[in-house]
Amino acid sequence: MCLSGTLEDKLTAAAAAGFDGIEVFEPDLIASPWSPAELAVRCADLGLSIDLYQPFRDLDSTDPVRFAANLRRAERKFDVMGALGVDTVLVCSSVAPDAVADVDQLAEQLSTAAARAELRGLRIAYEALAWGRHVSTWDVSWDAVRRADSAALGLCLDSFHVLSRGGDPAGFAAVPGEKLFFLQLADAPQLTMDVLQWSRHHRLFPGQGAFDLPGFLGAVLTAGYRGPLSLEVFNDVYRQSDPARTAVDAMRSLQWLEEALALADPAAGLHRPPAAPQLSGWSFTELAVDGVSGPQVGEALAALGFTHTGQHRSKPVQLWEQEAARVLLNASVVRAGAPGEAAVSALGLESSDPQRSAVRAEAMSAPVLPRTRGATEAELSAVAAPDGTEVFFTRTGPDGWPADFLPTGAPPAAGAGLTGIDHVALAQPFDAFDEAGLFYRAVLGLEPQQVTELAAPFGLVRTRAVTGPDRAVRLTLSASSLRRGGWAPRVPEPQYLAFATDDVVATAERLRAAGAPLLRLPENYADDLEARFDLPADLLAAIREHGLMYEEDVHGACLQLATEVLGDRFFVVVVQRLGGYDGYGNADAPVRMAAHRRQRRAAAVSR
Amino acid sequence: MCLSGTLEDKLTAAAAAGFDGIEVFEPDLIASPWSPAELAVRCADLGLSIDLYQPFRDLDSTDPVRFAANLRRAERKFDVMGALGVDTVLVCSSVAPDAVADVDQLAEQLSTAAARAELRGLRIAYEALAWGRHVSTWDVSWDAVRRADSAALGLCLDSFHVLSRGGDPAGFAAVPGEKLFFLQLADAPQLTMDVLQWSRHHRLFPGQGAFDLPGFLGAVLTAGYRGPLSLEVFNDVYRQSDPARTAVDAMRSLQWLEEALALADPAAGLHRPPAAPQLSGWSFTELAVDGVSGPQVGEALAALGFTHTGQHRSKPVQLWEQEAARVLLNASVVRAGAPGEAAVSALGLESSDPQRSAVRAEAMSAPVLPRTRGATEAELSAVAAPDGTEVFFTRTGPDGWPADFLPTGAPPAAGAGLTGIDHVALAQPFDAFDEAGLFYRAVLGLEPQQVTELAAPFGLVRTRAVTGPDRAVRLTLSASSLRRGGWAPRVPEPQYLAFATDDVVATAERLRAAGAPLLRLPENYADDLEARFDLPADLLAAIREHGLMYEEDVHGACLQLATEVLGDRFFVVVVQRLGGYDGYGNADAPVRMAAHRRQRRAAAVSR
Repeated sequence: MCLSGTLEDKLTAAAAAGFDGIEVFEPDLIASPWSPAELAVRCADLGLSIDLYQPFRDLDSTDPVRFAANLRRAERKFDVMGALGVDTVLVCSSVAPDAVADVDQLAEQLSTAAARAELRGLRIAYEALAWGRHVSTWDVSWDAVRRADSAALGLCLDSFHVLSRGGDPAGFAAVPGEKLFFLQLADAPQLTMDVLQWSRHHRLFPGQGAFDLPGFLGAVLTAGYRGPLSLEVFNDVYRQSDPARTAVDAMRSLQWLEEALALADPAAGLHRPPAAPQLSGWSFTELAVDGVSGPQVGEALAALGFTHTGQHRSKPVQLWEQEAARVLLNASVVRAGAPGEAAVSALGLESSDPQRSAVRAEAMSAPVLPRTRGATEAELSAVAAPDGTEVFFTRTGPDGWPADFLPTGAPPAAGAGLTGIDHVALAQPFDAFDEAGLFYRAVLGLEPQQVTELAAPFGLVRTRAVTGPDRAVRLTLSASSLRRGGWAPRVPEPQYLAFATDDVVATAERLRAAGAPLLRLPENYADDLEARFDLPADLLAAIREHGLMYEEDVHGACLQLATEVLGDRFFVVVVQRLGGYDGYGNADAPVRMAAHRRQRRAAAVSR
Repeated sequence: MCLSGTLEDKLTAAAAAGFDGIEVFEPDLIASPWSPAELAVRCADLGLSIDLYQPFRDLDSTDPVRFAANLRRAERKFDVMGALGVDTVLVCSSVAPDAVADVDQLAEQLSTAAARAELRGLRIAYEALAWGRHVSTWDVSWDAVRRADSAALGLCLDSFHVLSRGGDPAGFAAVPGEKLFFLQLADAPQLTMDVLQWSRHHRLFPGQGAFDLPGFLGAVLTAGYRGPLSLEVFNDVYRQSDPARTAVDAMRSLQWLEEALALADPAAGLHRPPAAPQLSGWSFTELAVDGVSGPQVGEALAALGFTHTGQHRSKPVQLWEQEAARVLLNASVVRAGAPGEAAVSALGLESSDPQRSAVRAEAMSAPVLPRTRGATEAELSAVAAPDGTEVFFTRTGPDGWPADFLPTGAPPAAGAGLTGIDHVALAQPFDAFDEAGLFYRAVLGLEPQQVTELAAPFGLVRTRAVTGPDRAVRLTLSASSLRRGGWAPRVPEPQYLAFATDDVVATAERLRAAGAPLLRLPENYADDLEARFDLPADLLAAIREHGLMYEEDVHGACLQLATEVLGDRFFVVVVQRLGGYDGYGNADAPVRMAAHRRQRRAAAVSR
């Protein structure tokens, strides 16, 4: 149930992502034209074991007639298990009105069922559903299993059911390892809602949510569990996303989890990929441009104080520089957008060990990109992020990537006070939002920050930052909260590149003098700032004059400006962080979005 | 915040739907290029009054410096109100850490602010947010307002904030009518979740949710409120849907509410549209077909035991009949789908008074469709449902719609035991799900049933029935729970027409003999039925032989079969209700969907 599609789609995706086995969930089997024996053959062909079967719920019953019917049903499912070649069946705590409350009676019924299973060489893993009628916590399920005292009966632990109820994994130590039959893992965001709805719609892969999965898994392994790690993630988005992508995301979550556990307990001897080398900053950001957007962006960069300093040795790529801010304009990107578009196509990140960064990325299931390079050009390792953006691991220096560029000899511009890249903001495909957070976390060692939601003019937008430990690298990832349809523009909000300045007012003055295409903001916005904050008169005047935005967080404040949209889906922001401001101008984003919409509509009308 | 888009989009939509006025929500104003005075002119041009302004939150504060700053901010917003020409400002209970807990101190601060407002001829409507820090219920807000004892200070009541906290509207009777300054209405589904998230994402228009809005409004009016009825619906879907459609939906919710209140209290003298005439059943269902799908569906209808009995006098429309089941195949529908498609284009509903049905529909903001008819043809009144399906109000009889058809003289087929239409299942556009429920409720007097969710192969699907009081008319409406993207097929699940039979096994035998394109179901499905239910051996054999589906509800059971998909997005179901079964085969729907997917893929491969 982690994957979308038919059973055939799911098996193919799981095998391709490198999984060793699967659980068979009854609805998939019932809807499949394959008999259980045919399914077993198909799994064997793909190198997948069948590790668990989930054929029904609500086994126990206070009604003897009902319990007898349930046992009869179980026997038929044991037949199916024989054909599937699986030896463990999941039985969840009952949610039915006739569920058994008395733990001794429950133990007796479980023991009866386990005896039937044992005759077939099968075993039952009993699991407490968080919303079970009488058994809703793992310790009560263990109490029943312990009392049943049957070799063919053990526990299935599920991290969601335990952690959503605030269960303490430390208690697993009391359970003998051989009674831990199965382990299901799921993360989740911390939500305050009905636990059944939380479980059915909002589960996530480990590392994507708020639960302490490394701590949970560590406790289970310490208790002696040695079976498979199975992912059971009910998630509305994954239910309808490309299963091949979801399966890779799922595999990455286990790779991340294994590493997190290995770091917490080096003595456990778990496999560890090479640690993510520290990323000390931005080497460059590359924009894909064409014959229309290239000159438009180049002209804007010139007005922003950049100098066209280099030309790539073998490709139509320009290097533009201002202090530590470097932008590549690449006219040869294959996956470029519509004609006239400019879009962020690659991130160059300064790695202390580019080669090791690439090896680690590959160990975290990141797709490594093939490189074509000239004989004298630098070796550049790159992987593809979930949205297709190429991530380069680089070193800036005479022996690094700049060696690929021949100097243009252009005299350096005076500059506009931009000192480097503050952050890069990438609009994500709807399906990739959670996947992207885990990708940057596991592959690059960046830390996902809190998800916040913006009330944008055409619908809610979720956004989160992923950041390096000293904020030398900051990225923001945004996506619509609901996939957009007919009315709201389907195209993502534009991406942007935010440059840092130490004095945004001085920068704004220079940019206006140079004719940079600065975005105009409504007077009402500045009027509201004046009502909300006690700002100095000269700052307020500058805000009004230059279309600056101002907001505060608990640490400090931020002044920023934006350009108009360039090449249809890209713009530039200039940010001055005051005090310890640690945000991304989210409060002002809706005003900026509406202003960009007006600008683009006006441009569309004038075309 | 009920409507998507920019302020200009919203005003246009509200005016076109017939609203008298609006609230101005600060983010819209701040993002607008119109000054407050320009906005006032624009509203006046559109015939819209500005009835409330929501410029900020968190007025009161235990910190005197902060409270002074808040008052200063309020004064600036009072300036804006002068320019807007609005006299009432909303102040919500504070959610800030410095919110005032002591009700006397709170009353004093509210009174101070009200005195400032009064000097400008303005007034403050104070509202308890359900998640306010210290004031979260309406009675506490009233206590503060009462103690403040200021003519310029009154209450704003919001149905969501009151009803989500289980508040009792009967208590409003204690509040003098002149202290009720403003009323905001929102419905919501009954959810168990954090009230803030519930409020921000899941509000609905009156009549779309689970709250007793007629009871709430009745209590407010009884207490003496005489101001506007304002809708404040934060809803993730409406935030990104076409505002013109949403505004009509919103207006219909008030029309429905007014009628519900008038029915509850005839003495109140409220306006009532003509009551919805009783719908006694199905006259016909019309399918839009073309040169490819028409013959294919016709052939299938013949194999299903139908006779082509009539031909329309002036249009390329065939009438097919079997007992009370009547199907029109219309080859002249303008909004038909892709080439080769067959789709439900119109519903013919038997009304006791077709003319009055049409008048009522128009009074409930249903778009009335223009009719072209020949001189001798019956007058047919029709309206468009949210998904574009035409709904005809008809009478079957010599003077009714059948008079438009010339008999073909074809000898009646032997039939297959189909006795009439059981239900029609319509896939809804994602944005139209809640709108459609209210449409059928308000316009046709059908009752929306519980929403259930299906785990379909390519993502969750929501479905609900709308039914007449005696189930003479049953419709089901379905939509994806999330709008589908790249992987899951974007086309909606097929629609279907379910015919009733008294003996589905006998019908299935006749259909197979006639070569009807019956859908094949997997063996695993029947194996599971055998494990789950104690079915007679001959019934199980018939289930296996004919691909029947069986499920139970609390009232009875249902046996059904489905055909293959005909014309790309349509199929036929035959249903036998046993006992008082009141469902729609939802439990079996995922199996059927997977089987249809296989059939369509196979057909696509063979093409």
